[in-house]
Amino acid sequence: MSVSELARHVADVALIDQHVHGCWLAAGDRARFENGLNEANTEPLADFDSGFDSQLGFAVRAHCAPLLGLPKHAGADEYWDRRCQFSELGLARVFLRAAGVTDWLVDTGYAEGVADVAQLADLSGARAHEVVRLEQLAEQAAQAPGDYASAFEEILRWRAPSAVGTKSILAYRGGFEGDLSEPSAAEVSEAAARWRAGGGTRLRDRVLLRFGLHQALRLGKPLQFHVGFGDRDCDLHRANPLYLLDFLRQSGDTPIVLLHCYPYEREAGYLAQAFNNVYLDGGLSINYLGARAPAFIARLLELAPFRKIVYSSDGFGPAELHFLGAALWRKGIGQVLGEFVADDDWSEHDAIRVVDLIAHANAARLYGV
Amino acid sequence: MSVSELARHVADVALIDQHVHGCWLAAGDRARFENGLNEANTEPLADFDSGFDSQLGFAVRAHCAPLLGLPKHAGADEYWDRRCQFSELGLARVFLRAAGVTDWLVDTGYAEGVADVAQLADLSGARAHEVVRLEQLAEQAAQAPGDYASAFEEILRWRAPSAVGTKSILAYRGGFEGDLSEPSAAEVSEAAARWRAGGGTRLRDRVLLRFGLHQALRLGKPLQFHVGFGDRDCDLHRANPLYLLDFLRQSGDTPIVLLHCYPYEREAGYLAQAFNNVYLDGGLSINYLGARAPAFIARLLELAPFRKIVYSSDGFGPAELHFLGAALWRKGIGQVLGEFVADDDWSEHDAIRVVDLIAHANAARLYGV
Amino acid sequence: MSVSELARHVADVALIDQHVHGCWLAAGDRARFENGLNEANTEPLADFDSGFDSQLGFAVRAHCAPLLGLPKHAGADEYWDRRCQFSELGLARVFLRAAGVTDWLVDTGYAEGVADVAQLADLSGARAHEVVRLEQLAEQAAQAPGDYASAFEEILRWRAPSAVGTKSILAYRGGFEGDLSEPSAAEVSEAAARWRAGGGTRLRDRVLLRFGLHQALRLGKPLQFHVGFGDRDCDLHRANPLYLLDFLRQSGDTPIVLLHCYPYEREAGYLAQAFNNVYLDGGLSINYLGARAPAFIARLLELAPFRKIVYSSDGFGPAELHFLGAALWRKGIGQVLGEFVADDDWSEHDAIRVVDLIAHANAARLYGV
Repeated sequence: MSVSELARHVADVALIDQHVHGCWLAAGDRARFENGLNEANTEPLADFDSGFDSQLGFAVRAHCAPLLGLPKHAGADEYWDRRCQFSELGLARVFLRAAGVTDWLVDTGYAEGVADVAQLADLSGARAHEVVRLEQLAEQAAQAPGDYASAFEEILRWRAPSAVGTKSILAYRGGFEGDLSEPSAAEVSEAAARWRAGGGTRLRDRVLLRFGLHQALRLGKPLQFHVGFGDRDCDLHRANPLYLLDFLRQSGDTPIVLLHCYPYEREAGYLAQAFNNVYLDGGLSINYLGARAPAFIARLLELAPFRKIVYSSDGFGPAELHFLGAALWRKGIGQVLGEFVADDDWSEHDAIRVVDLIAHANAARLYGV
Repeated sequence: MSVSELARHVADVALIDQHVHGCWLAAGDRARFENGLNEANTEPLADFDSGFDSQLGFAVRAHCAPLLGLPKHAGADEYWDRRCQFSELGLARVFLRAAGVTDWLVDTGYAEGVADVAQLADLSGARAHEVVRLEQLAEQAAQAPGDYASAFEEILRWRAPSAVGTKSILAYRGGFEGDLSEPSAAEVSEAAARWRAGGGTRLRDRVLLRFGLHQALRLGKPLQFHVGFGDRDCDLHRANPLYLLDFLRQSGDTPIVLLHCYPYEREAGYLAQAFNNVYLDGGLSINYLGARAPAFIARLLELAPFRKIVYSSDGFGPAELHFLGAALWRKGIGQVLGEFVADDDWSEHDAIRVVDLIAHANAARLYGV
Repeated sequence: MSVSELARHVADVALIDQHVHGCWLAAGDRARFENGLNEANTEPLADFDSGFDSQLGFAVRAHCAPLLGLPKHAGADEYWDRRCQFSELGLARVFLRAAGVTDWLVDTGYAEGVADVAQLADLSGARAHEVVRLEQLAEQAAQAPGDYASAFEEILRWRAPSAVGTKSILAYRGGFEGDLSEPSAAEVSEAAARWRAGGGTRLRDRVLLRFGLHQALRLGKPLQFHVGFGDRDCDLHRANPLYLLDFLRQSGDTPIVLLHCYPYEREAGYLAQAFNNVYLDGGLSINYLGARAPAFIARLLELAPFRKIVYSSDGFGPAELHFLGAALWRKGIGQVLGEFVADDDWSEHDAIRVVDLIAHANAARLYGV
């Protein structure tokens, strides 16, 4: 009966979802929902395709359907029809509360049509904290009067006290390859003038991106990086975290958290072993891998020290994702660690301790929540 | 008994082998056969080595031996001796017919000593269709009189009506890294003159390779790319499909099929999710992985939408490969989906539906066969 | 009972550990030990971390504890206290003798505070042979009087007769990317003068690194390369063995052995198929993966021909690692091949034969030991 103690623990363990976005607040059509089940494509899905015919789609039907009173594996049409009988806020309440999350760390960098920090707390009945996106802050500084660097620093100073960390989407703005050292004040000033002259929107200037990262290092709160799998605006091969090596060598004590990481989770695990200040999670990859999530979760448990792995769902849009990330993580970690225990490679006591570390203890230490 | 319904279905499902070459027509010696079990090495195998001592060699002995009246796992010598009692055409009839393939899509770009499209149809008792190799077509255009671009277009126009698609081996001609935009007419004309002056054989000129790809896009029929694992003439790290990102962003609606993909199958799956027109298969990787094929097939089922995955064997030479690709795929997909069903992550009904999509339905829609 | 014959064979099979370093000779504190369980980090572990909370730490407690008279999974404190009751030499005798190794091939390039070749033989009661590190030899030549190239050649000629092979840590000295052709005598002479003028320590000059590699090729004894996973001084993405392709194409008959390989073990397997003279092992990756080692060992068994795979522990420092590499390899290969046999993909007879090839037969042929 030893394995079932682990299983029971995994089923109930409290989670800190250390990187998440808001869920939708208003109803939308089926196309919105199906496109919401595809992360990579920036165009509407083709007519011949369906967002339901994917690992994520199957996982929604398997794990979310019962929360709406449907049988497991309910058909796509049946799921959609049933979903339409709820308001979006009603769905949010159902799914957020079922996730077993005590704290949501919310990236507010892109939040059109989705819940903000307070709304997420309210809908879920849990705590919610902000993670400030550096590129959004830069875009605000571009619109502010006066010196760019001062404006950036002032906005950061103003937003930092209530934030638990910062986030960079450098992966989407040219990727990690190339120099990431701190630019000089003159370089920043010149780059900012050029960018502002061009409108100051959608930051892609490397000098200013580097400036933002080093401001975040100086702040000292955990700095999250989108790594790997995302939408196709990202050149995936330039989002390999190994290109961050030189940056990490200069990053001092500020914690750096590598998010999602697929298909570079083994490289990310190496970095978590190589640097005292590097952490990783599986983020949205777990949702998108569905039935294949256990194999991925197992790879997250290779070179990374166990005190350096954290949990997140990266849910955005359909509230299903906020719940499903937790459900798939619970199922996956239970299966993977259960096999370690069954093979007598790990004791069950250790397995339960590692579950606690990843579920909440590491994130609690890291973010002070 | 639920899982066995899936197993029964997998065993009998009709396949479209969407990328294959001819099988040998005439007998050869044992060295030819053993080298035929090694894809990557372009030299004769070393004296101390044997093509039988590999995953593929073991799989031949496990799965092909019984079709020649031998026990499973018959020894290498025994297998070779028995094989010699058949004519090459006799072997082709045995193995091709046992594959359960209704349609072979035949890349005729390299066909020395192997069956052509009509012979493959005849030997297998199934339909066969041509896939035109762009680099071969370019080499024909180089030898034709007059303007190169016009010659290329004319040959393509002449061969396209009977072809179901095109194929590029850009992976072997410098790889995917670098600019793949459409060259100007002047650039094409200049590059063609230079190439023709040098003999016009074995196209490696980037301008003309790019020209060919964009002609294929314009044709609109599915365009297959050799991706990843092949022989050592290919710089494997330059055959990472992520280097195709910019090309795919420009590729419009023409279907692009990524072949083989090992060890980049996860990157290929990402591209299949990111672009409505991108597909992938496991191709020759499945044969070469033998007992390890299920783990690979499982990774093909990660980010790729299920309507974007197709089947092929990439068989070339020994007719064993045309059969074995199918046998290993059946065994692997049955095992992988069987575990999803056993874990209650997928319903058996869904598993059977996905088998049909990959086995034939996706390819039928894609190629109109 | 068929599988248990394989299991029995794996438990007892004699090993050649084809790449290893010395074990510690004198006692140290707990910080030394815990840092000795982290390969990648070049700084002391953070206060909040513990080397025990990792796959390797768990594997030490699972597999090494019983050899010290503790129960499996003994706690970290308990393990450390018990370990302190032994002398370092006593620990070495326990663990080295329990590894079941007949021959240690010892890289003597970095040997501060650890056993030398003779001591390793003595402590283990087995044979030990030297592997000469090229960069160390270069650093000796830099300090020698007269022409650098002649000095290098003379030292190599002097050390080669008693050595079974050479080793390069090019991965740590700029990585594999870029030109690796043989430099001219003039280039070598000029580079050596420059390097000597700068002190002649810690070779990073590409010309001289290339010179050393080609001297090793000329010698003809197996040349080992550190590949992939190591400490963070290595740019891991530049230690991808695919960047060795051009070098391998010029390497003639000299055997090249790719060590460790994580996370590039699939690429390394491809190279072992592509070149008659290329071999690979899993080296230190197996220790660091602990309970995840079977998945890695399975990937080593993909494209690589079975006569091209060898065993090593890469043990350095704690004598636990010299034993644990063997214990985890035995457990992992037994499990992986046991599943191939259980699935009837391999015969048990073949599985036992492949165990013998990897455990010792390939290395015996390769190194003549």
